[in-house]
Amino acid sequence: MENIIDYINKNKKRYVDELIDFLKIPSISNNPENKPDMLDAAKWVENQLKGVGLENVKIYETDGHPVVYGDWLKAGKDKPTILVYGHYDVQPVDPIELWSNPPFEPVIKDNIIYARGATDDKGQLFIHIKSIEAHIKNTGKLPVNVKVLIEGEEEIGSPNLSKFLKNQSKLLASDYVVISDTSMYAPDLPSICYGLRGLAFMQIDIVGPNRDLHSGSYGGGVNNPINALAHIISKLKDDKGKILIPGFYDDVIPLSDNEREEYEKLPFDEEGFKKNLEIDEIFGEEGYSTKERISGRPTLDCNGIWGGYQGEGAKTVLPSKAGAKVSMRLVPNQQPEIIEKLFIDYVNKISPKSVKVNARALHSGKGSMTAIDTPAVKAAKVALQKGFNVEPVFMREGGSIPIVNSFKEILGADAILLGFGLADENAHSPDEHYDLSNFHRGILSIAYYLTELENLEKYK
Amino acid sequence: MENIIDYINKNKKRYVDELIDFLKIPSISNNPENKPDMLDAAKWVENQLKGVGLENVKIYETDGHPVVYGDWLKAGKDKPTILVYGHYDVQPVDPIELWSNPPFEPVIKDNIIYARGATDDKGQLFIHIKSIEAHIKNTGKLPVNVKVLIEGEEEIGSPNLSKFLKNQSKLLASDYVVISDTSMYAPDLPSICYGLRGLAFMQIDIVGPNRDLHSGSYGGGVNNPINALAHIISKLKDDKGKILIPGFYDDVIPLSDNEREEYEKLPFDEEGFKKNLEIDEIFGEEGYSTKERISGRPTLDCNGIWGGYQGEGAKTVLPSKAGAKVSMRLVPNQQPEIIEKLFIDYVNKISPKSVKVNARALHSGKGSMTAIDTPAVKAAKVALQKGFNVEPVFMREGGSIPIVNSFKEILGADAILLGFGLADENAHSPDEHYDLSNFHRGILSIAYYLTELENLEKYK
Repeated sequence: MENIIDYINKNKKRYVDELIDFLKIPSISNNPENKPDMLDAAKWVENQLKGVGLENVKIYETDGHPVVYGDWLKAGKDKPTILVYGHYDVQPVDPIELWSNPPFEPVIKDNIIYARGATDDKGQLFIHIKSIEAHIKNTGKLPVNVKVLIEGEEEIGSPNLSKFLKNQSKLLASDYVVISDTSMYAPDLPSICYGLRGLAFMQIDIVGPNRDLHSGSYGGGVNNPINALAHIISKLKDDKGKILIPGFYDDVIPLSDNEREEYEKLPFDEEGFKKNLEIDEIFGEEGYSTKERISGRPTLDCNGIWGGYQGEGAKTVLPSKAGAKVSMRLVPNQQPEIIEKLFIDYVNKISPKSVKVNARALHSGKGSMTAIDTPAVKAAKVALQKGFNVEPVFMREGGSIPIVNSFKEILGADAILLGFGLADENAHSPDEHYDLSNFHRGILSIAYYLTELENLEKYK
Repeated sequence: MENIIDYINKNKKRYVDELIDFLKIPSISNNPENKPDMLDAAKWVENQLKGVGLENVKIYETDGHPVVYGDWLKAGKDKPTILVYGHYDVQPVDPIELWSNPPFEPVIKDNIIYARGATDDKGQLFIHIKSIEAHIKNTGKLPVNVKVLIEGEEEIGSPNLSKFLKNQSKLLASDYVVISDTSMYAPDLPSICYGLRGLAFMQIDIVGPNRDLHSGSYGGGVNNPINALAHIISKLKDDKGKILIPGFYDDVIPLSDNEREEYEKLPFDEEGFKKNLEIDEIFGEEGYSTKERISGRPTLDCNGIWGGYQGEGAKTVLPSKAGAKVSMRLVPNQQPEIIEKLFIDYVNKISPKSVKVNARALHSGKGSMTAIDTPAVKAAKVALQKGFNVEPVFMREGGSIPIVNSFKEILGADAILLGFGLADENAHSPDEHYDLSNFHRGILSIAYYLTELENLEKYK
């Protein structure tokens, strides 16, 4: 093990240089223009998997962006098999003008690397590839059987991955899925995530008059689609953060006293949180702490809105159209399909007849919970302790990784969520960045984890 | 007079050809990129005024776009002096993709000309220039003293015209201002407009967190500026069209019984109105007819809204910023400055402290009312009757021409509003168009009007 750790320390700079190459590829999955870049990114991952010594490396086509796979299965049948999952696609870059540097020209400052995809998820998935490299280059082998699956559609809801899992269930069969696509609870606080929120992402389109009208000639006599949209949105969630869609909370499992005590123990600096975001006041559902609101409770947010004239100055138009994107974060046990239907029914019910309203679901994912007393989770706790020299915490995450549910349902494998990102690393916004000290300690931790997994029985 | 009418009929085609040249100039006043086009349009008007035989023709610089002036003052001091006002600037063309033809490449179909500015106001102001031409070319003179003032900033609220009127009050001194920038009540129904609504155009900008956030990591614990904006907008006007800003209606003079009877007489086909706009249901302030709502009552409309992700598909962002443009149409006696203050105070009062809200006024204009029993108005009625062979109606207009008030306040001149456009000619929207039969009958009417004005005493 000492050799492996030495190797990781010695190759620290090269690992970062390789990550920079990876981050230069603009693999934005939701933009058709970036299709060639998506293929470049897949090929880059393919070369990495081959380079570190994995076998059966192959790019698998899907109906969307391809999946990259590789494995090393010579540890023997008595050893566990883990499936490492990550995604090489990244979020769009709008608003591009708010980036301090171009999003695909990585810059390092104070050991933090700035680029789209740095923390979500290229920097995190690369931890696993480099840990595997350190083992194979030093020992010629891995302690357990390892399969690596890197997809290219996570940021658009993984529309083709479930089909791939079903079709390749033999290839992908494994005891645990290990995923690094979440955040540590705080800097220097290694974290194991045991709960993820689900998602129901909706769009509302409103058409009023069939064309833009002069607001002087028609104003007052024709309903305005923007005003109508504002009325609808204001009825989705009250101004204290409570969601008003009938039935929305029906399937929510309340936070247990035990869980709320655990939440209470997690460090949280409310003044620092406000200062960091430059907000004057905390906001959210009454009766819950901010920590609980952002991971243990469901919520509803407008992700985008548009309509009419958005330029400089005044244009006296009564617009024909308006629209909004609205997403709901769901807690485990809330079913996205039910929530989507409740949303659509409610929007239709509260919509005035003087405009045409179309509410529809864009994509969704179930939330998930993992048991925290299994041998693989206990082993992870030990590995993180060794990698960071700090006692790890258990936490729930506010974000969604819908595919975690598919792994459980299709492959029967529990997910071990070892996040090495930080919540304030601008995952979906301008100036996304990643702390390279967590990149390094992550590689150490996963290298330890592969070794700990070799002797799982000691954790039983 | 017969010669003049013959001349107008014979030159019908050339007049349209010249209008086409005028419409080809993309004189969008709110776009800095079109500044050279604004100058081209001013020069084009200058050449026209010179060409038809006006004197003292000159382009006057202002702090914004220039004003074009010309006059003919040889009718004698015992004859009235009229000031013809119009504007050579046009509205922006967004959304450009909804135009059937490029907005500055005029197309004629079924005697209707399609182009930005066709009805607002190039086609209408050109009526006056061509009527003047018909008189001067046939008789070598005009029946009354005429001054022509064509500005280039009407669509952005005429920010420099009041100053120009003040500085040039001697040059512009006149008994009446004649303006064709309004609509006829209906096709084939020549109309004299006696009331205009005022305007208060506002912008609301909201900043939540200092950057776009991942809606999973932060959703539920940070107020969302779009949701906050929707709540604010929904509190400005209720879903039945009543404005909720305290004090908003305080200065409104109620429609008199007499006025409501006049409104009742105006033809209005509600089913046709709905069909034309493809709306299923009429909307507006309770207790008033659509005719009253769109011209006799004040109202509030969102003219634009923006925030977050507006592209295809899903982006799970909790945006940093959102904003909206909101305008209020005011009835005569409502003071824009008071309304602006009421709006800002109210928005500040209802804004949550968890976001930063900035409400500000962009531009404004007072409404106006004209007496309908003056000799000049009576003469106009006769001229319109002759030009259209139809009995004219008196009406109020929903739109705003703030400068009408300035003419009254600075020059002491009453405005005679003779609109030759139609309300459904898409004045501020794609596929703006203008009925050339009204262009022709407008030229005839104004030619008659110049003659009628010569013997005003018969209307006293």
